[in-house]
Amino acid sequence: MILSGLLTSVAINFALCVIFFTLYSILRKQPSFYKVYAPRMLAEGIASVRRPRQFHLSRLLPNAGWIKNAWHPTEEQLLSYSGLDAVVFMRIITFSFKVFTIAGFVGIFILIPVNCSGNQLQDVDFINLTNNTLDVFSISNVNNGSTSLWIHLGAVYFVTIIVCCLLFSEYKYISTKRIDYFCSSKPQPEQFTILVSNIPVSKGSNVGNSVENFFTENHADTYLSHVVVHRKSKVWTVAHALKKLYKKIFKIKKAPTQQQFTRDGFLVDSNGKVKKDKSREEVRAAFVSFKSRYGAAIALHMLQSNNPTQWRTEQAPEPQDVYWPFFSSTFMRRWISRLVVIVSCVILTVLFLIPVFIVQGLTNLAQLETYFPALKGILTMSIVSQVITGYLPNLILQMSLKIVPPIMKILSSQQGYICNSDIERSACHKVIWFTVWNVFFANVLSASAVNLVFIILEFKEIPDKLAISVPAQASFFIAYVVTLGWTSTSSELFRVIPFIGTLISKPFSRNSDNVTVPSFPYHKDIPKVLFFGLLGFTYFFLAPLIIPFLLVYFSLAYIIYRNQLLYVYAPKYESGGKFWPVVHDSTIFSLVLMQFIAFGIFKMKKLPYATSVTFPLPVITLLFNEYCRKRFLPIFMAYSTETLRKKDREDQTLPEMPRLLRQVSEAYQDPALVPLSYSSSHNSLREPLIPVAEVRG
Amino acid sequence: MILSGLLTSVAINFALCVIFFTLYSILRKQPSFYKVYAPRMLAEGIASVRRPRQFHLSRLLPNAGWIKNAWHPTEEQLLSYSGLDAVVFMRIITFSFKVFTIAGFVGIFILIPVNCSGNQLQDVDFINLTNNTLDVFSISNVNNGSTSLWIHLGAVYFVTIIVCCLLFSEYKYISTKRIDYFCSSKPQPEQFTILVSNIPVSKGSNVGNSVENFFTENHADTYLSHVVVHRKSKVWTVAHALKKLYKKIFKIKKAPTQQQFTRDGFLVDSNGKVKKDKSREEVRAAFVSFKSRYGAAIALHMLQSNNPTQWRTEQAPEPQDVYWPFFSSTFMRRWISRLVVIVSCVILTVLFLIPVFIVQGLTNLAQLETYFPALKGILTMSIVSQVITGYLPNLILQMSLKIVPPIMKILSSQQGYICNSDIERSACHKVIWFTVWNVFFANVLSASAVNLVFIILEFKEIPDKLAISVPAQASFFIAYVVTLGWTSTSSELFRVIPFIGTLISKPFSRNSDNVTVPSFPYHKDIPKVLFFGLLGFTYFFLAPLIIPFLLVYFSLAYIIYRNQLLYVYAPKYESGGKFWPVVHDSTIFSLVLMQFIAFGIFKMKKLPYATSVTFPLPVITLLFNEYCRKRFLPIFMAYSTETLRKKDREDQTLPEMPRLLRQVSEAYQDPALVPLSYSSSHNSLREPLIPVAEVRG
Repeated sequence: MILSGLLTSVAINFALCVIFFTLYSILRKQPSFYKVYAPRMLAEGIASVRRPRQFHLSRLLPNAGWIKNAWHPTEEQLLSYSGLDAVVFMRIITFSFKVFTIAGFVGIFILIPVNCSGNQLQDVDFINLTNNTLDVFSISNVNNGSTSLWIHLGAVYFVTIIVCCLLFSEYKYISTKRIDYFCSSKPQPEQFTILVSNIPVSKGSNVGNSVENFFTENHADTYLSHVVVHRKSKVWTVAHALKKLYKKIFKIKKAPTQQQFTRDGFLVDSNGKVKKDKSREEVRAAFVSFKSRYGAAIALHMLQSNNPTQWRTEQAPEPQDVYWPFFSSTFMRRWISRLVVIVSCVILTVLFLIPVFIVQGLTNLAQLETYFPALKGILTMSIVSQVITGYLPNLILQMSLKIVPPIMKILSSQQGYICNSDIERSACHKVIWFTVWNVFFANVLSASAVNLVFIILEFKEIPDKLAISVPAQASFFIAYVVTLGWTSTSSELFRVIPFIGTLISKPFSRNSDNVTVPSFPYHKDIPKVLFFGLLGFTYFFLAPLIIPFLLVYFSLAYIIYRNQLLYVYAPKYESGGKFWPVVHDSTIFSLVLMQFIAFGIFKMKKLPYATSVTFPLPVITLLFNEYCRKRFLPIFMAYSTETLRKKDREDQTLPEMPRLLRQVSEAYQDPALVPLSYSSSHNSLREPLIPVAEVRG
Repeated sequence: MILSGLLTSVAINFALCVIFFTLYSILRKQPSFYKVYAPRMLAEGIASVRRPRQFHLSRLLPNAGWIKNAWHPTEEQLLSYSGLDAVVFMRIITFSFKVFTIAGFVGIFILIPVNCSGNQLQDVDFINLTNNTLDVFSISNVNNGSTSLWIHLGAVYFVTIIVCCLLFSEYKYISTKRIDYFCSSKPQPEQFTILVSNIPVSKGSNVGNSVENFFTENHADTYLSHVVVHRKSKVWTVAHALKKLYKKIFKIKKAPTQQQFTRDGFLVDSNGKVKKDKSREEVRAAFVSFKSRYGAAIALHMLQSNNPTQWRTEQAPEPQDVYWPFFSSTFMRRWISRLVVIVSCVILTVLFLIPVFIVQGLTNLAQLETYFPALKGILTMSIVSQVITGYLPNLILQMSLKIVPPIMKILSSQQGYICNSDIERSACHKVIWFTVWNVFFANVLSASAVNLVFIILEFKEIPDKLAISVPAQASFFIAYVVTLGWTSTSSELFRVIPFIGTLISKPFSRNSDNVTVPSFPYHKDIPKVLFFGLLGFTYFFLAPLIIPFLLVYFSLAYIIYRNQLLYVYAPKYESGGKFWPVVHDSTIFSLVLMQFIAFGIFKMKKLPYATSVTFPLPVITLLFNEYCRKRFLPIFMAYSTETLRKKDREDQTLPEMPRLLRQVSEAYQDPALVPLSYSSSHNSLREPLIPVAEVRG
């Protein structure tokens, strides 16, 4: 990429950000756009679209009051308002900000002067030099064999140690928060319930009896009740599909909703109870509730049966978090689904190399000219070539990457998870590895694109290849930070698609009351933040110029995501900070990748001693990771006896406990199977945080 | 290796086997050798050394009566007499025998005729052909691109399916046996006890109080008692070492035993109780006992503390199985020890390549002549060259391999395990991988010996390299089976070292009563049997001639090990069949290795379709393994709620339960710290199986 291309990209994106910010600060004050910019406020009745208001000129002027509002709330307030997952997400950003402030300081004030003092690149002729001015600031400019490379090695060591310390304290903080959050929570159905699947049923019995017998025999002291899971029966499903088809053909206009149809399958008898008619059949799974949290935990962690594929136990998800479709699956089917999904992910990853190669083709203009000689005339125009090499590649990449999180979520949902939060966490994993592979490795190693898979099979040469390719891509990734970091995050604030949606639907819809409050797409945004972290780690000692761009991104992200968490997104479930181990692992991966690149760089720069001194780094980092896995990970897998017992003892004093326990099993009913629409009562814990006045800031 | 070399080796080893058998059948009838050949009988009082007997001529004649005795007992009898581990060991042999009978049938009657009908090797000149006659029977003789290779592919598929079926049924059988064994066992201390380590102690408290408080608070219903682990205090240890040195210098003759010294550290007070003087100090670990098996299992499987490195729980081993030295270790120290041991193992494995290369040098006589031209005169003598190429290499390998199991056991004992059975199982793992790597891979790939490590880094080429090298080593491994299989197993029967020991010590010792009954060295013998399995799998379709030799080995092993388990070895502990998962995993490894070699062979033989058809095999095998891990492995990790509850209910009716529970915690006392020597009462369950008459058969 040529320097002017990069500058063009920065300019375009900066302009876009300014436009988004300005528009947002005006539009958010228009009551007709509350639906887009403060749906959560609307839903909670703090703001109202319909209230007629006097017109003030200030409504049309952009201002920055919202920044203050977003900055203001403390972490405690955010926790009580948006849950622990939101806090964890914000801490990813602050953690990254801290790390890259330190790394940036080292990079800008120590490494850049060292890099500039070298003259390795002076052999390059002048025209190339202007095109690669940025390389003067990078490690490529340090002379081969120069002792000043030891400073880079020192920086790598320093940052590794700092990051490990920060990771440790962060893991500790979040695990404490997780336990505190659990301790301070009111009794919830999922705390007393487990999901039992693959229930063996003897002939002449049914699932309900089987569960009842097993648990009264083996968990007599703690067993409370159970709810057998049902699904629509196959015969009914076919009949229903035919009926639907029939209605569709003859009354296209009055299309009935799926929801109503599902309810059609039920007959409510005179007592108002659901009569189990042929529309549903038992599934060999049940939600089993216990009298205490500890009792539920025991049933969860102990092997129940002599055949480990039967009576399989899982922690019950929150009632509103249950993903019903997968309950009908057997152990084998869930397992095979998982394998199929893994294979699909691999195929998707390979197919995605196509847009990546197009992008790389654009950054190498000369190559493009060779393939399409007809374009030569246009490409010689300065502005066109700048847009094409600077802005276009990242735009294509951004568009292609947009479709990845939804696809990964669909794949994850087929993997046999029983709750949406697990699906989202699994999708988050997939998106991270997809991004690292397809954006980082595919771009960096695209010189030998077709052989990409084979490169990985030749272990020895990976550090060398990375050492050559990574520094060369510095300006591409700066452009990437600017496009996918700055602009994409600003467009998140502006909410482009819902905004357009509202504009289009406005003339057609009455000013109705039903506001859909979206939930935060963790599987889309966590990988994004983590990937910028990876770029920061790998480039801070190679081309420290990337760091200021990253710091701007993290600052933007901090304020924008906070704003969105407060005004736009409402939590749909609470995983209790279970996203943090994902963050920890991928940060460790970034660190090790950085160390491998350092290894390759020192080897290439002919500094054998430094190469050997680099070697202990990944070993130490991985040992540190292993220690953290032992020290903290179990906390995210299960609550301790200590905690559970304490909570149970506290509960005994609660007067409402008997009533709560009665409600526990009623909480788990497939919304598609109950006659009345299921209404979530799950936000009961959270109090509105921001007074009405502030919303209209 | 030349053919005559192989024949020499077979002849020597056959002769050795006959000698060992003959000597054994005579010597076992001499009362003075009962100590060597029937120590268990002696210890249990069935046979007696001192009983004067009439002299019969039959005592000096070899006979085969012992074979009948060893053959006779049923599996049930072996189970009650030698425990489940012995049964599992015998089942490894019968499993291998079954598999290789089927594979041998396919190999000898289908593959060998196909191999002989080829003429790939006719290009080779006549002299080479005589030297490699065996190759005519191997896959090397099949013409490149010949469709008859599809028969080999069919054989690989057939054997894979057969082995998977057998593995499944065997895993099922042994897991059922394991549960039955537990269900039929009398109450044992280890069933009610867990080991808690890394106990946090607040200031002004001690370990005992800490345990008492924690378990009365969190496990009030089931907690019974605890025993804090002690170690010799450091001050005392130093003082004691000095005292010992002093005594050593001045009274070398009257060397007191270590045991007495240890007891010296204690003062027994007037009531006969041990006074805790300064010789011992508390360790932050305790054996905690519960009122029921289920209670102990709950405490074992639940996360106890909010800091997962504290209150770590492990299943308590049988009292006589405890390995005391490692109790003083903290979580961190145990973890670091484990890492250090892994590194040591890797170093040992690399160092061991030296004897392997010497062995390979000997099998390539021409190479030897090049290095040592002076030897040329001797090496041209036919008998010398036959011994050198046929017998010597395997003898060197055998001698070097003899030292590996003890070394691995020492390494494992430093790894932080708390019981001997875990140490032995871990050593078993190490010995298996050591053997596979150093005997199989190092021998097979020794052509490029120095680059051995780098070969592994080049994934793609491994199947090709194996395809070339493995068939070429067929005769070497036949000689290996004969030497390390036949002779080594026969010498196990003859018990060479104890025999020589008795011969030497006889003139010096009085005919004393103290017989040491050895325990079965699983870590030495399981890897041996498994490695022969690996050879069988990899060679059955390459050079089926190896199979008859293997079948002879497995028959010998069956009868000899049965005999030894009945007369020589007494079980020191019972892991309840936990060795089987090791066997299963390594069999799966052998299968996959076989499939990789098949892949390489078909590629080399220019049969691309067959190559692609081979590809699904390892995938299916690994999926099968994964399923077995889910289906059976949890049974070997923990007993189910179902089983534990059932046992607990049965116990309630036992009149001796209160007494048993009182004894539970007394069972765990460091033998080095109690004034009276600890006597194991653990064989109480097992009844003598063989009447006196039979012993003297």
